[in-house]
Amino acid sequence: MEQSLRRVETGMKKQYIDGLKAGDTAADVFVLSAKTLAQKKDGNNYLTVTLTDRTGSIKGVVWDHVDEILDAGLSSGDFVSISGRVNEYRGNLQLVVQTIKPCPPGAVDPGDFLPQTRHNIENMFSRLVELTEAIKAEHLKSLFKRFWDDGEFVQGFKVAPAAKNMHHAYLGGLLEHTLSMALLVERIAGHYHGIDQDLLLAGVILHDIGKIREFVYDRRLDYSDEGRLLSHIVIGIQMLEEKLSGVDGFPEEQALLLKHLIVSHHGTREFGSPEIPRTVEALLLNYIDEIDSKVNGVREFMATEDPNEAWTSYHRMLGRHFYTGKNKKDHLD
Amino acid sequence: MEQSLRRVETGMKKQYIDGLKAGDTAADVFVLSAKTLAQKKDGNNYLTVTLTDRTGSIKGVVWDHVDEILDAGLSSGDFVSISGRVNEYRGNLQLVVQTIKPCPPGAVDPGDFLPQTRHNIENMFSRLVELTEAIKAEHLKSLFKRFWDDGEFVQGFKVAPAAKNMHHAYLGGLLEHTLSMALLVERIAGHYHGIDQDLLLAGVILHDIGKIREFVYDRRLDYSDEGRLLSHIVIGIQMLEEKLSGVDGFPEEQALLLKHLIVSHHGTREFGSPEIPRTVEALLLNYIDEIDSKVNGVREFMATEDPNEAWTSYHRMLGRHFYTGKNKKDHLD
Amino acid sequence: MEQSLRRVETGMKKQYIDGLKAGDTAADVFVLSAKTLAQKKDGNNYLTVTLTDRTGSIKGVVWDHVDEILDAGLSSGDFVSISGRVNEYRGNLQLVVQTIKPCPPGAVDPGDFLPQTRHNIENMFSRLVELTEAIKAEHLKSLFKRFWDDGEFVQGFKVAPAAKNMHHAYLGGLLEHTLSMALLVERIAGHYHGIDQDLLLAGVILHDIGKIREFVYDRRLDYSDEGRLLSHIVIGIQMLEEKLSGVDGFPEEQALLLKHLIVSHHGTREFGSPEIPRTVEALLLNYIDEIDSKVNGVREFMATEDPNEAWTSYHRMLGRHFYTGKNKKDHLD
Amino acid sequence: MEQSLRRVETGMKKQYIDGLKAGDTAADVFVLSAKTLAQKKDGNNYLTVTLTDRTGSIKGVVWDHVDEILDAGLSSGDFVSISGRVNEYRGNLQLVVQTIKPCPPGAVDPGDFLPQTRHNIENMFSRLVELTEAIKAEHLKSLFKRFWDDGEFVQGFKVAPAAKNMHHAYLGGLLEHTLSMALLVERIAGHYHGIDQDLLLAGVILHDIGKIREFVYDRRLDYSDEGRLLSHIVIGIQMLEEKLSGVDGFPEEQALLLKHLIVSHHGTREFGSPEIPRTVEALLLNYIDEIDSKVNGVREFMATEDPNEAWTSYHRMLGRHFYTGKNKKDHLD
Amino acid sequence: MEQSLRRVETGMKKQYIDGLKAGDTAADVFVLSAKTLAQKKDGNNYLTVTLTDRTGSIKGVVWDHVDEILDAGLSSGDFVSISGRVNEYRGNLQLVVQTIKPCPPGAVDPGDFLPQTRHNIENMFSRLVELTEAIKAEHLKSLFKRFWDDGEFVQGFKVAPAAKNMHHAYLGGLLEHTLSMALLVERIAGHYHGIDQDLLLAGVILHDIGKIREFVYDRRLDYSDEGRLLSHIVIGIQMLEEKLSGVDGFPEEQALLLKHLIVSHHGTREFGSPEIPRTVEALLLNYIDEIDSKVNGVREFMATEDPNEAWTSYHRMLGRHFYTGKNKKDHLD
Amino acid sequence: MEQSLRRVETGMKKQYIDGLKAGDTAADVFVLSAKTLAQKKDGNNYLTVTLTDRTGSIKGVVWDHVDEILDAGLSSGDFVSISGRVNEYRGNLQLVVQTIKPCPPGAVDPGDFLPQTRHNIENMFSRLVELTEAIKAEHLKSLFKRFWDDGEFVQGFKVAPAAKNMHHAYLGGLLEHTLSMALLVERIAGHYHGIDQDLLLAGVILHDIGKIREFVYDRRLDYSDEGRLLSHIVIGIQMLEEKLSGVDGFPEEQALLLKHLIVSHHGTREFGSPEIPRTVEALLLNYIDEIDSKVNGVREFMATEDPNEAWTSYHRMLGRHFYTGKNKKDHLD
Repeated sequence: MEQSLRRVETGMKKQYIDGLKAGDTAADVFVLSAKTLAQKKDGNNYLTVTLTDRTGSIKGVVWDHVDEILDAGLSSGDFVSISGRVNEYRGNLQLVVQTIKPCPPGAVDPGDFLPQTRHNIENMFSRLVELTEAIKAEHLKSLFKRFWDDGEFVQGFKVAPAAKNMHHAYLGGLLEHTLSMALLVERIAGHYHGIDQDLLLAGVILHDIGKIREFVYDRRLDYSDEGRLLSHIVIGIQMLEEKLSGVDGFPEEQALLLKHLIVSHHGTREFGSPEIPRTVEALLLNYIDEIDSKVNGVREFMATEDPNEAWTSYHRMLGRHFYTGKNKKDHLD
Repeated sequence: MEQSLRRVETGMKKQYIDGLKAGDTAADVFVLSAKTLAQKKDGNNYLTVTLTDRTGSIKGVVWDHVDEILDAGLSSGDFVSISGRVNEYRGNLQLVVQTIKPCPPGAVDPGDFLPQTRHNIENMFSRLVELTEAIKAEHLKSLFKRFWDDGEFVQGFKVAPAAKNMHHAYLGGLLEHTLSMALLVERIAGHYHGIDQDLLLAGVILHDIGKIREFVYDRRLDYSDEGRLLSHIVIGIQMLEEKLSGVDGFPEEQALLLKHLIVSHHGTREFGSPEIPRTVEALLLNYIDEIDSKVNGVREFMATEDPNEAWTSYHRMLGRHFYTGKNKKDHLD
Repeated sequence: MEQSLRRVETGMKKQYIDGLKAGDTAADVFVLSAKTLAQKKDGNNYLTVTLTDRTGSIKGVVWDHVDEILDAGLSSGDFVSISGRVNEYRGNLQLVVQTIKPCPPGAVDPGDFLPQTRHNIENMFSRLVELTEAIKAEHLKSLFKRFWDDGEFVQGFKVAPAAKNMHHAYLGGLLEHTLSMALLVERIAGHYHGIDQDLLLAGVILHDIGKIREFVYDRRLDYSDEGRLLSHIVIGIQMLEEKLSGVDGFPEEQALLLKHLIVSHHGTREFGSPEIPRTVEALLLNYIDEIDSKVNGVREFMATEDPNEAWTSYHRMLGRHFYTGKNKKDHLD
Repeated sequence: MEQSLRRVETGMKKQYIDGLKAGDTAADVFVLSAKTLAQKKDGNNYLTVTLTDRTGSIKGVVWDHVDEILDAGLSSGDFVSISGRVNEYRGNLQLVVQTIKPCPPGAVDPGDFLPQTRHNIENMFSRLVELTEAIKAEHLKSLFKRFWDDGEFVQGFKVAPAAKNMHHAYLGGLLEHTLSMALLVERIAGHYHGIDQDLLLAGVILHDIGKIREFVYDRRLDYSDEGRLLSHIVIGIQMLEEKLSGVDGFPEEQALLLKHLIVSHHGTREFGSPEIPRTVEALLLNYIDEIDSKVNGVREFMATEDPNEAWTSYHRMLGRHFYTGKNKKDHLD
Repeated sequence: MEQSLRRVETGMKKQYIDGLKAGDTAADVFVLSAKTLAQKKDGNNYLTVTLTDRTGSIKGVVWDHVDEILDAGLSSGDFVSISGRVNEYRGNLQLVVQTIKPCPPGAVDPGDFLPQTRHNIENMFSRLVELTEAIKAEHLKSLFKRFWDDGEFVQGFKVAPAAKNMHHAYLGGLLEHTLSMALLVERIAGHYHGIDQDLLLAGVILHDIGKIREFVYDRRLDYSDEGRLLSHIVIGIQMLEEKLSGVDGFPEEQALLLKHLIVSHHGTREFGSPEIPRTVEALLLNYIDEIDSKVNGVREFMATEDPNEAWTSYHRMLGRHFYTGKNKKDHLD
Repeated sequence: MEQSLRRVETGMKKQYIDGLKAGDTAADVFVLSAKTLAQKKDGNNYLTVTLTDRTGSIKGVVWDHVDEILDAGLSSGDFVSISGRVNEYRGNLQLVVQTIKPCPPGAVDPGDFLPQTRHNIENMFSRLVELTEAIKAEHLKSLFKRFWDDGEFVQGFKVAPAAKNMHHAYLGGLLEHTLSMALLVERIAGHYHGIDQDLLLAGVILHDIGKIREFVYDRRLDYSDEGRLLSHIVIGIQMLEEKLSGVDGFPEEQALLLKHLIVSHHGTREFGSPEIPRTVEALLLNYIDEIDSKVNGVREFMATEDPNEAWTSYHRMLGRHFYTGKNKKDHLD
């Protein structure tokens, strides 16, 4: 992770799609998102391709050496080294590809190809670890120690997205969402007496860990096989169970209540929770998750909209237009 | 209100139903909640009655002078002065009524007959007024000044319940719920930048004012005709519009956004909002309302349950048993 | 309104889109519905535009003087004076625009640019006023007098549409729909005894007045900010309340029942009514509204379909194909 | 039917349950609605019974000759000749039965034992026949002639109820509901041009004929086996098909459209229509059915409620209280 | 049918769309699926057409003699004799049509133009007849004899599809689906004692016979008017009733239960069954139908998907991607 | 289990509730299901109790030594040794309790107090083990070996119920349901080619193992804390994961697919599956589960109904009456 983060800063990749102009010469690594074989009028093959990086996508065409390229076994999703020229075709940019070669994943920084949190991942992670160190209940503290000592877990936890679309759908999104919820717990929980704050905080931090395996996010953001077949709730329970089994004397009722927070955090069966919230902490966790994902999701959506319009376009998942008003500048910085 | 509140303290009513024992002589004012005429074997009439005050209810029977009582025109819901004796009948207490007479509403303190918030109403109200005085937007400040200067409004706002069942279903419940939400706004809103906190706070304080007229709560807690025919959202909009019309230069967009917070605060049309939330502030208001009403509703429900059981009975509205666990003492004080 | 209606008849606008043929010279006012900036292969800008009037739309292209046009600040939704030539391009007509200039709204008749009821607005309005003059209940008569004396209200009431899509989605649609329902009340209400016909008629005439402000319909038909944020039910209640406050001695129960008719006229909460019908009159109003909007909506839909087919295309909102049969000529004139 | 109707007038049955008083001697025929065997403290059997006629029900007890009675094979639902004495027991009337004997169905008038329409059945039927004679389309006229010539069909059509609960749940209810809808068609249909009025009227008259077989209504009102297994829509289609096959030259498209009116008259699949309305006539039939059944159902419900209350009790099927107001006398005669 | 089946084998049609290559000369019969009139730049008309057979579709263009062709009255859905040349245009094949003439339906084999079951229709039908001959209940045996003796019924039963999309959406699909279910009955039914296997088998074989008339499948696969207006359940009941009326002494209860199996076989009203299953046999029939249609539908869907992907594309009706895994070859032959 | 099963046969418990008659002396162990403290008219306490065993329940009363009994700390759910006399009171039997003493759970056979499968548990279990031994896939065979070698698991698997109500709600119900489904798999699976039968069989046998911990069934049948907080799907996944981790070289994809069968076996999220079926095997498992639970549930329900009625009473969960007909004897043995 250290290395990966440094690469983001040093910027091995020089060209980004949103910076290409007609007339430019392109020579860099992109993700080959799509590839279609077609036939020219003279009967020869050509390829139309879509290339992406974290800033957007561009269509391209490969006129020559198509058979060699096919033999090289390029698949959708591969990193490719491209050289070519940027043209304008019917008002859109188009990349006329001269060479296209496979590029080993190890030689690139995934962060160049997938959108990433705007916040500093290490800072966010340190802040979260501090919160767990302030927990009073010893068994929960020990549990988190086990998680933080697991390098592979930490690596995934720092990089995983929180969703494929909708909200926090970028590298580091899971961590950003988790930290935001944990800070909300600190704010809200004291408002009501009689809440088991340690348990609630632990539940918040662990509620979405299954997403580390629910998604693949090495070069494109999508569901993993395990994610689609089991769901992050079931995956998360297995990950928690594995760590719990290593903490001596973890109280049985607390283990049950902690698992319940994961199991019920979607609030209803319709939304994929096999059980509904049956404790006050579980009710609160569901609401805090709702607030953080909806507020962030709507704000990310608003940010991509035309700032000169008082209304956003139609938000399909939420089934509505949002009002951003006439003085947006003051509202959203 | 001043007078009413003093009366609560001086305690004109001496006997409460939860204090009656077999053998006691009863002589005080109660609400006649229900009344049924029946026939004795000798062909004469008798009355079975239900009497209530804020501590509970007791069944009673009136054997004599029934025709005179009927001529006096007593109706369900009236305050009645009772004298009689408390018996035990099949394991339950029963009041054998000797005299029952109408009692003018003016002579009693409604607070004796309906459950009331455990918190100090004047303190809560002062706290809320302070919050509105800290608002920076002048037009909102002026709006609240107009509300607080309206004695009749303030009187209702302090006494109204927030619901008939479920949560805050007692005198002062509206104020308690509103203040709790306002304090939550203070905690949560700073967490997200770009929120119009003044507007959100104003919306929170005004979102349920229609309940002042949606309910009747002079001697029993029920829906008013207006409440059932129009809903508190529509009533609240009318109350707000009347006050807005008296504030010079209230910005039109802000008026619209403030009304939108009231109109959309139930979150979906199914729950009675004619429009769904279309601003981030409206989303937040809906969630804060959900949290405060659900957490309080569930905790009130838990408080009435058998403390020796790990599970509550079935909560019909929420469709589930809640887990209160084995160490409840530590959780709920 | 007088002036506007005369203009409709005198026809200031000479050319309508559905009359343009390849080879024509176009020179008239249209609405600039959409506008996109693009780049020619030589690097220069050009504009693609969509122009509309009440008879349809045509695509256009502007090759020259694009920068001057952009400097003139034309926005989507503006009226524009156009000169150009009609070509045929890939089987469709296309307007090659030579000049395009802003045109002040005052200089045009909106009726030329939005579809309009086929019925005579003044006749419909007179018929409706007569119906209200035949009402026996004095307080309702006085209420309608106040509405009809409000010139601005009457202006809007005559022109507003009843919907954005689906049914009566044209200028004068609200009036046409309202009158049709009022005439249905006359037919149906006598069928059942014990209906308060005056109240039902008043409810029918006022049930949708909020649509006067729910929509904008000056040059395009869309929701207003207020419409999307509050809904026409809430707007209508405010409009009624304002008029009611000026009628001395309007009986309180009648005011409540009249408001209830507006509040509940969508029949269920899912459809945006904050309260469901709780009187027989409210049940009837909801059904009469359903009948008139559905029958008209379906007939308008059928009228746009291919008369040679026994089935319409798929009606998305109603989720079905409609059968128009083989002898349609006899059915739908 | 003639005979049956005359019997209603001559009144073979002398005693009705709603007229019994403590001290009366009872001696008449009732329906044995329920029967339970129990044991006295001395070990002997006794029977508790429920007896009904069209005016209500009364509990009874049979102390003696229980074994002889059991041997006689009395079942729930049988007509029984009773002699006994009316007592008062815990405030309710109770019939101490001395003799109870089976009574052959032929010897009684079912109209005495089931509630019946308040309207004159023969008058209603004549009115409906007149409406069908005024139909212009010859094929529909011929079809109705075949129905009216079928004595068994007419007999059932005059007596069947329209429902088990909710609306028109009494003998003659189907006819009353059908006639009311047919008269509504006359009122509404002219309002919209282009409706096939003859077809709509035919559909209205036939839409519920399956209820003749869906219910049993000889001594109690309940679903028949066929009704529960097939539904009145499927039964009605079979009844119509049988009659259609006897009309020469009935146009195929009209037969299809007429069947469609029956098949779709519940409006949605959820309500039991295997197909949804796909013609304007089918839409209208569904709405007219809704109006007539809801308005009548709600008014029947209101009529049984306490006239001194402004609100009805909770209507379970419609999920609401209805407002009947304070001046009901004027509204509902 | 005999003749039709022989034609399938002899193969009158020589050219199929999936076999056409650029440069080929086309000369055979196709279905004219769509036809659009357009204008060339020189002002003359041309036609764009879509031609289909059971193997796919191809776009075409007709440059010459357009007016003569239009005068010949060709409509969408007609069989047409085509001569022309296959070109490649923008990477797709295109048929440049030289002559296009109507072709009488009698001269073609519909099986050439619609997809067809891969199984032998006669073999499947014989297998099904054998199953009915093994039924022990004489009345059911007689009933099937009547069905199998009806040549027109058998003809339709062998050819009809089972659906328009989703599953068994090809000629012979109804028979294939029915036989598969009947064989499943043999497997499952013995597992539970007390099932009326004869009745269940009869219900399975007859449950979808209404589809013979619900669809048209002479040259394209679509709903018939009757299908859309009545549904195959209602049509099937009429077909069964007609046959039942010819079987002497068919037990009334068995007729009712058999009809119930048809009426309830979709399991819920939402899915178009006017009554829900109320016998164990009806429950089983619904499940067996579900299994056979879903398993086949999903497998047909999987078969059209990219074999190199572990997941199918999104299945719109079932709302999910399916996992086909990495070793599909072994699973699906 | 061996011992437990032998005890069932030897019958330590002599008296069962369904065999008690008025006048009997009772002296045996029962479950104290409910207990209420009440006051006699003389002011002394008495107890009303409900006693149950696997054959039913009886009310009882304890007049004397109540304080000693209370001091003994008896709770609802305890086994108690009772002596007393059976009386008849108001037509019901009542037990007048003379002595009531706690009875240690170890001294009783739970099978005497909870209903139990009618089938032989050991035979069913052997049959199931045989099925797993016939599995060809070695990794699945090894997995089952691990399950069958775990004595505690086998003990629970043999005794657990399959539900609290509805179907197989008795000791051994899980095993009975699982075996029935496994035998159905054998029947159905061969019908469709390309099914992974070993995997499907494994999924069927393991799909409900979480119910071993979801319920408590030592003396009463109810949900466990874990069951209500996590659901049997999540519990089952943990139990499977624990066993999988002990099988060397279990193929990863097969593990995923096997877990998917458990996760998705309820078919939809609404019914508690966090993921929906995404393989053909998962679709089949869901249907086989549906068939076996519904057919058994309905047949158990029918078996408790009045055999003289053609219709059952209303089945609340399935929302319908079932038709059992007039010749039930032949159908259900």
